[in-house]
Parts: sequence; C-alpha cells; structure tokens
Amino acid sequence: MKQSQLLAVTLRESPGDAEAASHRLLLRAGYIRQLAAGIYTYLPLGRIVLRKLEQMIREEMDRSGAQEVLLPAIQPAELWQESGRYEMYGRELIRLQDRHKRDFVLGPTHEEVITDLVRSEIGSYRQLPVILYQIQTKFRDERRPRSGLLRGREFLMKDAYSFAIDEATMQQSYKIMYDAYHHIFERCGLDFRAVEADAGSIGGQGNTHEFMVMTDAGEDTIAVCSYCGYAANLEKAESAASSFIPVSIRNEADEKVLSAEAAAFPTMMDIPATDSATGVIGITEETDSTDHVQPEKVHTPGLRTIAQLTEALSITPDRIIKTVIFLVDSQPIAVLIRGDEEINEIKVRNYLQVDELVMADADTVQRVTGAPVGFAGPYALASTELVCLADYSILALKDAIAGGNEEDYHYLHVNVQRDLVLRHIGDFRNVRAGDSCPRCQDGHIHFQRGIEVGHVFQLGDKYSAAMNATYTDSSGQDQPIQMGCYGIGVSRLVAAIVEQHHDEQGICWPASIAPYQVHLIPVSVRDEQQMSTALELYKKLTDAHCEVLLDDRNERAGVKFKDSDLIGIPIRLVIGKGAAAGEVEYVERSTGIRELLTTEQAIRCILTAAIIE
Amino acid sequence: MKQSQLLAVTLRESPGDAEAASHRLLLRAGYIRQLAAGIYTYLPLGRIVLRKLEQMIREEMDRSGAQEVLLPAIQPAELWQESGRYEMYGRELIRLQDRHKRDFVLGPTHEEVITDLVRSEIGSYRQLPVILYQIQTKFRDERRPRSGLLRGREFLMKDAYSFAIDEATMQQSYKIMYDAYHHIFERCGLDFRAVEADAGSIGGQGNTHEFMVMTDAGEDTIAVCSYCGYAANLEKAESAASSFIPVSIRNEADEKVLSAEAAAFPTMMDIPATDSATGVIGITEETDSTDHVQPEKVHTPGLRTIAQLTEALSITPDRIIKTVIFLVDSQPIAVLIRGDEEINEIKVRNYLQVDELVMADADTVQRVTGAPVGFAGPYALASTELVCLADYSILALKDAIAGGNEEDYHYLHVNVQRDLVLRHIGDFRNVRAGDSCPRCQDGHIHFQRGIEVGHVFQLGDKYSAAMNATYTDSSGQDQPIQMGCYGIGVSRLVAAIVEQHHDEQGICWPASIAPYQVHLIPVSVRDEQQMSTALELYKKLTDAHCEVLLDDRNERAGVKFKDSDLIGIPIRLVIGKGAAAGEVEYVERSTGIRELLTTEQAIRCILTAAIIE
Repeated sequence: MKQSQLLAVTLRESPGDAEAASHRLLLRAGYIRQLAAGIYTYLPLGRIVLRKLEQMIREEMDRSGAQEVLLPAIQPAELWQESGRYEMYGRELIRLQDRHKRDFVLGPTHEEVITDLVRSEIGSYRQLPVILYQIQTKFRDERRPRSGLLRGREFLMKDAYSFAIDEATMQQSYKIMYDAYHHIFERCGLDFRAVEADAGSIGGQGNTHEFMVMTDAGEDTIAVCSYCGYAANLEKAESAASSFIPVSIRNEADEKVLSAEAAAFPTMMDIPATDSATGVIGITEETDSTDHVQPEKVHTPGLRTIAQLTEALSITPDRIIKTVIFLVDSQPIAVLIRGDEEINEIKVRNYLQVDELVMADADTVQRVTGAPVGFAGPYALASTELVCLADYSILALKDAIAGGNEEDYHYLHVNVQRDLVLRHIGDFRNVRAGDSCPRCQDGHIHFQRGIEVGHVFQLGDKYSAAMNATYTDSSGQDQPIQMGCYGIGVSRLVAAIVEQHHDEQGICWPASIAPYQVHLIPVSVRDEQQMSTALELYKKLTDAHCEVLLDDRNERAGVKFKDSDLIGIPIRLVIGKGAAAGEVEYVERSTGIRELLTTEQAIRCILTAAIIE
Repeated sequence: MKQSQLLAVTLRESPGDAEAASHRLLLRAGYIRQLAAGIYTYLPLGRIVLRKLEQMIREEMDRSGAQEVLLPAIQPAELWQESGRYEMYGRELIRLQDRHKRDFVLGPTHEEVITDLVRSEIGSYRQLPVILYQIQTKFRDERRPRSGLLRGREFLMKDAYSFAIDEATMQQSYKIMYDAYHHIFERCGLDFRAVEADAGSIGGQGNTHEFMVMTDAGEDTIAVCSYCGYAANLEKAESAASSFIPVSIRNEADEKVLSAEAAAFPTMMDIPATDSATGVIGITEETDSTDHVQPEKVHTPGLRTIAQLTEALSITPDRIIKTVIFLVDSQPIAVLIRGDEEINEIKVRNYLQVDELVMADADTVQRVTGAPVGFAGPYALASTELVCLADYSILALKDAIAGGNEEDYHYLHVNVQRDLVLRHIGDFRNVRAGDSCPRCQDGHIHFQRGIEVGHVFQLGDKYSAAMNATYTDSSGQDQPIQMGCYGIGVSRLVAAIVEQHHDEQGICWPASIAPYQVHLIPVSVRDEQQMSTALELYKKLTDAHCEVLLDDRNERAGVKFKDSDLIGIPIRLVIGKGAAAGEVEYVERSTGIRELLTTEQAIRCILTAAIIE
C-alpha cells in the first residue's frame, strides 16, 4: 500500500479526554475515530488490525472444533422475558420497537437467541456436544463509555456457546475453550492471566474465569497470591475467612461458617425468624469470660463517619462496627463490617442471589434505624425482622464501637459474640493487599491491574431450564442441556494490545496483528535513486507476500519518522543517502535497534524472520 | 468436517409461507433459520457461504483500490437531520434513544456517517480520489419483509463510497466500481445484467445502475431491448416518447417536448400561471382542421372505471383520458394518461422532485374535481391552479372521452391539442412490452424479471453540499467533494445465487461459494471397508486443502443422498460396495453426471479440477 493513497491522517494532539494510552494512540495514529460516546469508526489501518484479530480468533475457534454461526443483532423481547433478563439487564439493554410496535432489543449478548436456536435444532443426545461461535457487533448502552475501545457502546465480540449432555461434558467444552483462549492471547503477544471471577448478570453457578491483560491502565483489580498463583478479580477474591474467626468458635462452627458464603438464599421472603440453617450461627450462646464490660450508649454529637469517630475517640478503625443500609428491590437490608474494611457489594448480591443492590437513601436509613445517616448500628437492628449480614471481620470484636440507632449516639464495649444474634455470616469484604491467601494460607495477596479481554462461564442449566432447551437421552428421557458461554472483546483486545505494546512515540504492534509488517521510508521522494530503490524493495517484498506500507508522501523526513513511530509497524526500512551505495537502514520499532544493511540483506532479513507467516 | 458433528438439520418440509425457491431450500437444507420476520440466523453451512462471498467481495474491492473501513451501526440522528433524510426515510429507518434520551438511528445505509468522516479527514485535493468500503450488517424496518434472505430487515451489505475532486474523477471511480461489480457477479456464477435505474431516496442526479440477477423469482421488472441491449428497471425505463407525439407538433415542438421529462420543477410553488418555459406547450394554439366536433358533456350514470366506460360506450380504452388525483405533501396534483396505460409514480415523483406521492382520498377528489371518485377529467381542471401533468400518451387524442368533473358525467369528443392547455408534459407511464426502444428506435421492449443484488450511484454533491464536505483545490478554494456510492446486498446475493442454481432436489452451488467442494458419502458407516476408504479419501483430500464434508452419520443411504442433494455440494463421491475393488462413484451435483472411478482417479479429478482454488 502506498501511504499517499491511504486514508490515515495522523494527529499531533489527541483529544483532551483521551486518558488511556491505547485511546490516545489509536486516535492519533489514525486507526479509529469517535462518532458518538463509545461508538467508533475503524479507519483502514484499524480495520486491518481488527480483521487480523478476527481471523486469528476464527482459526483458533475452528481448530478447537467450534462451528461459526451468525445470529441476529435484533432480538425479540419475548426471548429476554422468557429468560428473565428483560427487566434485570437494566438500561444497558437497548430496547426498540418495530413499525408494528413489537418489542425488540439490540443484542448485548446472545444466550437467549442461541438457546432458542438450539432448543429447536437439537433433539437427541447424539447431536451433542456442540460448540457454536460468532464474531459480531454487540450493543450495550454503558452508563459511562470511556477509554476509546476499552469500554464502548458498540463493539466487536467473539461469543461462543457450548451445549452438552451433562456437567462433565460441559466442563470438557469449558476446558477446550479455556485452552483456545490461552492460544489466542499468546498469539497476540500478551502478558495475561486467567483469574477466578464473578459470573455477574450472565449467571450460572459453575466455574468462571476472566482473562486479564496485565496493565496499570486496566480498570479491574486482580488479587494475586505470589506463593500459590491464586488469582481472582477483586469482585470475586475470597477472604481467608478463618483468619477472622475467633478460635473459640472456630472448631465448632468452622464448616458452617465457611459454607455460609455459598448459602442458599433465594429471595428475601425466605428468611427464617430464628433458625439454625446453614450460615446462621447463634453466637449469643457463646460467651467469652474475659470480658464483662457491658455495652454503654454514649453521646457522640456530630460523629457520623469512621474518620470522625476514630479522631474523636482516639481509636483505630478496626474497633468500629460499620453498619451500612442497602436497598434490595426496595426492601432494606443491613451489612455489618469492620470499620477498616470495604464492603464488596457483589459478594452481598451473590449471597442474597439478587441482581441489584443500591445504597439506601436518607429517608430509608431514618425509618429503619430511627436515626439519620451516620448512627446506624447492629445492636437494636439484629433483633428486628431486618435482614442483617455480618462480615467475618467483625466476629472477633469484643470492645467495639457501633452506631446507637439514635441521632448523636453510639454504643461502646460491644462484644459481638456476646451481644449480637447474627443470622447471616459470610465473606462480604474486599480482600486487601497483605491478606493471607484464601487457598494456600501461606502466601499473601497483592494487587495488580488488568483489562478483561475474555470471560468463560459454566452456565449449567440456567438458560436451558428457563427456556426449556432439552435433549432426549439414550433412555428416551428429556434432560436440560448443559451450557457454557465464552466471550472475547475483539475491539477491546485491540486496545489492550496497544496498552502493552507502546512507548512514548507511539504503538509497537506485535507482528501477528500489525497492519503491515514493513514500513518503507524513502527519506526524500524527490531523490530518484531513493525512490527507485524504495519501489524495487516494495515490489520484491510484496511479490513475496510481505505486507508493506510505502511512505511515498512528499513530506519532510521528520514528519515521516514521527508518523511511522505512531503507526507502529514492526520493521522500518529507511532509504536515505546510502541508497546510492545500495544500503538501507533497518529499524526494529519495538527495540529501536538499527542496522545498516544492503538491500539484499534487508530483504533476506525480513523474509526469513518469523513474522512473515 | 464430519457431518455427524455439523449442526445442519435438514427439513423434509419447508414452512408454508416460503414461496421463493431460495427461501425454501436454504431453510430445508439447514443454512438459515428465521428468528423474527425478516431476521435470520445463519447456521454453520450458511455462515460458510456468507463468509466466502464476503471474502470474494473483499478481494475484488481491494483489487480495485478501495480501502476497507468499519462504520458504526448506531448513528446520531443529527447527521440524518443534516442531510435531510431523518424525516424523509420514513418508517424503514429504525429510530432509538440512548439512556440520555439522545436520538439515534440504526444504519440502513451510511452516506451520512461517511460524509461526516470524510469532511473531517479530508482537507486537500491531494488526498483525493479515495474509495472506502465496508461489509456490515444493515437495518431496515421493511413494511413487508419476505422471501427469506431476499428482503430482510437485518441483512449483510457491502457498501462503498467514492470521493473525488470533480465529476470526471467521480465517473472514473464509478467505472472502477462498476467493473468490480461485474467481476464479483461473474465469480458468483450468475447470469446478470446492469440496468439503468432510478436513484430513489438515496438521490443524486447522475448515472445509476442496478445489477440484476435474471430469474423469474425476481421482484423487479426489467425492460430490455433485444436489438440494442438497452436495459432499465421498469421504474426507470423511458418511453419512446416521440412515437406518441403527433406529427403536427413534432417538428416544431420536438425538442421542447422531449426535454420536458428532465424539466426543473423543484417545488409546487414554482408553477407559472401561463408561460412558455421548458416543458410547457400551448397546445391550444395548434388546431386540427380535420376535427370540428366540439366536446359534449353526456350523462354516464355509474360509469366510474375504464372497464365500465369501455363496455357501456363500446370503445377501446385507448380513447379515454384517465385523470388521477395524487397528493404531494398534502397538495393535490393531477396526472393525465391514456386509459390503456399505467402511471409510473416514480417518474411523476422525479419530475416533481418530491419523495412521496400518494393517491388522493375521496374527499380530496371531491373537493378538487367537484365530483366523487370516477368522474375526474382535465377539461375544467386544466384552467385552474392545480398542477396537472400530462403523459405523452394523450397528446395525439382527438375524439377522446374524459371525466366531466361532475357526478355521472363525462365529456365526449375531447381533442387534446385543441381543447386543453397542458403546462407539464412528460413521460409518466410504465413502458409496455412491445414498445419501441427509447434508444435505438429499431428494437422493441420486452420484460424480464430480476433480483437487484447491486446498485451503483453517482451522488455528485448531494451529501457533500448538504453536510459541507469540501476540499481545498490547488488554488486554495473550497470545493464540494463529488461522491459516488455502491452497494451489494451480500445476504441477498446468497439467495439470488440459489435462485439461479437449484433444481427440484435442492441447491447446486457454484464451486466458488459452495460450503464444501466434495461430499464424501460412505453408503454404510457400519461397513469397515467403506469407512476406511472414506476416511482415507477424507484425509488425502483435506491434506490437499480441499474442503470436504464426510457424511459419517449412521443413516440410511436414501436419507444421506436426499440430504446431499439438498445441501448442494458440487461433487459427491459415493463409497459403496465398489470400495472393496477400490472404486467410488463420482457425481456432479449440477449436471447429475455419474462415473465409476478408482479412488486415485477420483482424487486426481477433484484436485486438478478448476474448482479448487
């Protein structure tokens, strides 16, 4: 391709709101342009990169035995009502009506459509297992689209769905996809890792892993144990619960406590007033003989925050029981956690098996606690009908401070085991750097940042049961199909690669997805010798199926080099004054290594390099 | 691919509403499934065919020098308001709002988005010409989606746009695309022709051609001259006007009359009360001495239709002046045409340069003509302010019957030249089979049916002027960019190919886009000799990069052959009892030719055939 004909306008400046390096560089180097918030056009260079990625993903999917399909973007609302996600998906789901006022959605994902397809196409166990995939534009009306291709409202996705007769076969498909994902991200030249993750609104009770590209620009926090290799999204990362549980109750209640996290708690209506179901421990029955000081209600005027309390009372925040009121489907619930910890709302949501959790408004707090915001406490609450979740972190507290449920009052000397009846105990906190590893107990957690580029889920029968997708087994019985689903954000992957492959001057593409392999730059297009050498190289290389961009623009050398750095083609051949002597400069974009070579050497060097496939 | 693993369920019956052969066969053979009206899923076989077509189109586009981009499906409404098409496009345009209540549309086409892109990326004449294309899903809320992939609401399209400094360069780009389209449709193995067409709502005053796949199943009618090769969509096909114009006025008024068709008539407001502008002929000034009978108003109770009149008065319909009242932006207009002719509404719209034309309701007819529907006539009308368009076909009438503009009355003995003042004369009729060719005058028109699979337009500055897309010329002046646009309905093309390549038993794919080249069918998978021969052939052929489908299903031979006929792979190798003797049956799907070959011969035959690319 001759650059004078290529629509690839480079920009000296990037828009002020482009913070992520990938966003900035893809704009400046002429790969993408914004049409509206989170909606981008791919210019020719961007289209080539996207297409190479698509092709690589397609190859790996085909190699794994998955079959490509193409599902519609416009989906009947009925299917989403059937699966129960029509309301639940919220405002990210773009809804529309056709001219006959029939309701449709623009597909943000395709579980419903593919389950609908499979329930009519698959009848017998002999047709299973099967894995179907597509590479297709998806639509999600993100509340805050940002960072260019990293979080868009219209984006390219590879989504795959597996169908199997039972859990074991589902797990085999899961493994096949998991491995294929490793191959794909390796071919992209990425430093990545698969981390345990939360299934989110897509659901399913089985395993789920996110594939994270490690970079400080990532918006996900990953908790990693440097000792055993445990890695999980912060949303999901488990606390080493046992380290919080007092020895006094550990032996007896250990298993119960640990299993509380996975307690079945399908709806708010199921709460028993008093019982001894899984996850409910009557801690009041345990008393600690070392502590006889009774709770005392004290006047704490204006002390509403942890910071105010710690300062006024000269205590550390780990002596405070923080009580936070949330709303679940407009019903209030309380979460108790130690003052120095953060609530992990996803853990709360998963425990309650609900999809939405919002902070309660001031009126609700007043109504529920009898006090304005800042004075909620567990002491009176725990005996009411209000669902109250206690994080492991408070279990060991014996001389704690807690809200008084009365304006300007707190309790001192709260002994959790002695004073509180806790029905729902579990892991509701964000792990912190330095925590013990929940797996090996030997290592400690540290944090890394990452970009989620892939996600694999074991869905089980979540969709097949709701939508009645069954097969007939060998004995003639109907059984729900066991599903998995597997996504790669293709356009996001472009950005993630740039995040890991760039420098101050521009992009440094891995050869596997670079738009061109060689950038030929005659220093002066008015120099006949240089241009004839350049054209000869161009012909020889393109004849050998090498992808070459020839900068034949009548621009200053400095402009050309700056553009070349921005665009990021792996190898640059500079044809300057040495052309008369048959010499060109060979430059490796990622390392900056330069060498003077004869044109023959340069050609040999390029054509024998592993980058030409 | 082993067929036992392929998700390709064939159907013995097709849905009752599937009339077109392509619709029926693509469903039955397991290529597509309907999700909603006009919205289809591509199953694995369908996806392969679609992908092969995409790839072929991409190759030809790239070869022509066009550059691939990818534009968003979601487009800001503002751009459509800027071009003036937001309202005009009507209910086919799918509108939606994002969570911030901002208006968007789902792209049915991309003139606005690409013009917006180019006006910001292109500044100088040095950047031109450029041709950009994309292969992308389009959305049109068709009033009556039908015939499977032939007219869908969500469909795959290749759209290209050219940008040039002037009309001559625009025409060069047009020619390049026109030629590329020929190559594409030739590679698809199609019998097609490029026909002159109407630009429709996409607009532009220049040339436009439709690429029509000739088949009786087509919904377009094409007028063809068998003598000179003239071919045009019925919507556009010109009348050989001069054959209708009386000799008495031809010499003097010929040029004026013929140019009337292209008369500028931008708005209804421009009508001069009396003048001699182009296209306005004061026919009253001509008198014919042979005819002295004056018009006579006669009682014609209940004779409202041409059929009733001809029967009651014992005349042929070519003696009647039909007067039809339409509404344009709620203003009435009248069109006069001979009773045996049909009005071509597109010609009327183009003459008036308006986008919508609807039949007037009964109230309007009563108000405008003073009579109920069935009695409208030109006699009194022509002297009013009402715009009245006269088709060439009435010009020669001398003893005609016309409505009386009074209930139950008609005029007899109307002499058009003597009695009517016609300000707007033109070609407003559908051509008819047997008409003289408007080009060569020697040949005659006949009709063929076709499917429009491609359309090329010279847009000129229609969008660039409206959206201020300019470039700076070599003298520093801003000039509007001259545009062209070029579409191929990729998914429709799949169906069009099937329409031309099928028989009673199923599809007969041309090798260039067949999902597989060879269908290997062991008659009995339980016969070890047959299976080992089949697997050996499978290995040898796939190793040689031949695309092979192996029917390893444990089904009766009859079922397999029926499915194979349906699916339509070009070559079938049947491995039956002859396998023991090293023989297989080689069957060509399209011709039915069968031959017994040794396995070596079969392999050689397949690998040396032109079909393996």
